[in-house]
Amino acid sequence: MNRKKLIEQIRLKKSFLCIGLDTDITKIPAHLLDTEDPVFEFNKQIIDATKEYCVSYKINTAFYESRGLAGWKSLIDTWNYLPKDTFSIADAKRGDIGNTSEMYAKAFFDQESSGMSFDSVTVAPYMGTDSVKPFLKFKDKWAIILALTSNEGSKDFQFLQADPENKLFEKVIQKAADWGSNENIMFVVGATRGDAFLTIRKHAPNHFLLVPGVGAQGGSLADVCKYGMNKDCGLLINSSRAVIYASSGHDFAQAAREEARKVQNEMAIILEAM
Amino acid sequence: MNRKKLIEQIRLKKSFLCIGLDTDITKIPAHLLDTEDPVFEFNKQIIDATKEYCVSYKINTAFYESRGLAGWKSLIDTWNYLPKDTFSIADAKRGDIGNTSEMYAKAFFDQESSGMSFDSVTVAPYMGTDSVKPFLKFKDKWAIILALTSNEGSKDFQFLQADPENKLFEKVIQKAADWGSNENIMFVVGATRGDAFLTIRKHAPNHFLLVPGVGAQGGSLADVCKYGMNKDCGLLINSSRAVIYASSGHDFAQAAREEARKVQNEMAIILEAM
Repeated sequence: MNRKKLIEQIRLKKSFLCIGLDTDITKIPAHLLDTEDPVFEFNKQIIDATKEYCVSYKINTAFYESRGLAGWKSLIDTWNYLPKDTFSIADAKRGDIGNTSEMYAKAFFDQESSGMSFDSVTVAPYMGTDSVKPFLKFKDKWAIILALTSNEGSKDFQFLQADPENKLFEKVIQKAADWGSNENIMFVVGATRGDAFLTIRKHAPNHFLLVPGVGAQGGSLADVCKYGMNKDCGLLINSSRAVIYASSGHDFAQAAREEARKVQNEMAIILEAM
Repeated sequence: MNRKKLIEQIRLKKSFLCIGLDTDITKIPAHLLDTEDPVFEFNKQIIDATKEYCVSYKINTAFYESRGLAGWKSLIDTWNYLPKDTFSIADAKRGDIGNTSEMYAKAFFDQESSGMSFDSVTVAPYMGTDSVKPFLKFKDKWAIILALTSNEGSKDFQFLQADPENKLFEKVIQKAADWGSNENIMFVVGATRGDAFLTIRKHAPNHFLLVPGVGAQGGSLADVCKYGMNKDCGLLINSSRAVIYASSGHDFAQAAREEARKVQNEMAIILEAM
């Protein structure tokens, strides 16, 4: 999906919600466990219930890989089931030397080779330019580069002073912005501190940002939008656990729908006021 | 495999060679293509032919993921076939927030969950402590943390001056060394400049280092050993393409064996002189 289409979807649905399918087989409702593939069945019902209110789905590959071959099958089946008018994200945090990153790009972008063709993949920046560039060779596909994450460990390296003016996460944004454009690069920016977005927007005024950490991880939607939005919206706000585990009973899909609708309502008001 | 056993294997085989199974289906000999799983068949024959001369196998997961479900099956089958007296490395460059890294650790360490239990996984450091710690909870398993890589893009961030005394890759080694011990942490150190090992050894005198980049990527074995060895050897030197693609004909396994034997001979002489 290209940038224009993504922005259209945001306007159409009055939403910039991304729903994270971090589907943990130990957390899904008991009544699904005797279906053929409980994880896929759960995802299917979550997608059906929520697709009206979100513009994107993010699949956290770790949760699928942890179940080996069966998990990788759930991953492919889930990708196949995603509505093609939503922006799909393989949250895989990949990155390696050039010839290996080419293989990762194939894994997530080249349906003929791997059975999947996501719109985007999350990528770790540590190995630099040739670890990211192979992802940018695919038309209308995106690399979403880790800049500032919302976890405790983000303090270990991301805030190191990389030069007199910039911390490491700023340096990552500055450099990576040159590897592609705002048509094929986004950044992951954790939402635990809204005002960090002022700094981010200094370096990447026009890029889309993928923002985890609103809700369960403690960030405020209002703050993120206040400091992080740009004229095209420029934000995809992810919610995983708060939506998909809204209920653990037979009503899980309905509860997820309600939760997604609530967030979408807030987002509609914010978009209106833009 | 614990540190003691690894050192024993190095002494026994007079080798610290790791063979990288970066198996690309477009590069394997044509006569294998009509077997049921050409990639696994190739790996099997390479393993049989070389296991006498190496102490470790490194599987580059990207090459398997790129082929979707079939590739993930080749990966599991290959892991199953690895001799249990060799040190197995899932070269996966994973890393995410704590609860997600737990899932990645299950994917590569918890056989009951995923069908695989490698001795180690390569891990990207950018997200800090909680992205690595879940890998350290498994007994006799290792996290191999990216410190200094051998690719062009390593210059983008790894050499940034992180404080007056240390570059970023040094900071990564200093911090990460505290997350575990030399019994469960190794570092990836690219071999394109042998004297960089002087700096590395200042920060991690006793850790094992996984060294790609000898051979195809241009590093010299003698230089790496001169500057990088410690009293326990402390090195696993990886060779992928130079060994596994030594010939593209019917004699590919024999040619790989010859190549591995040649490297092992050099290593035996170096170990003798220690």
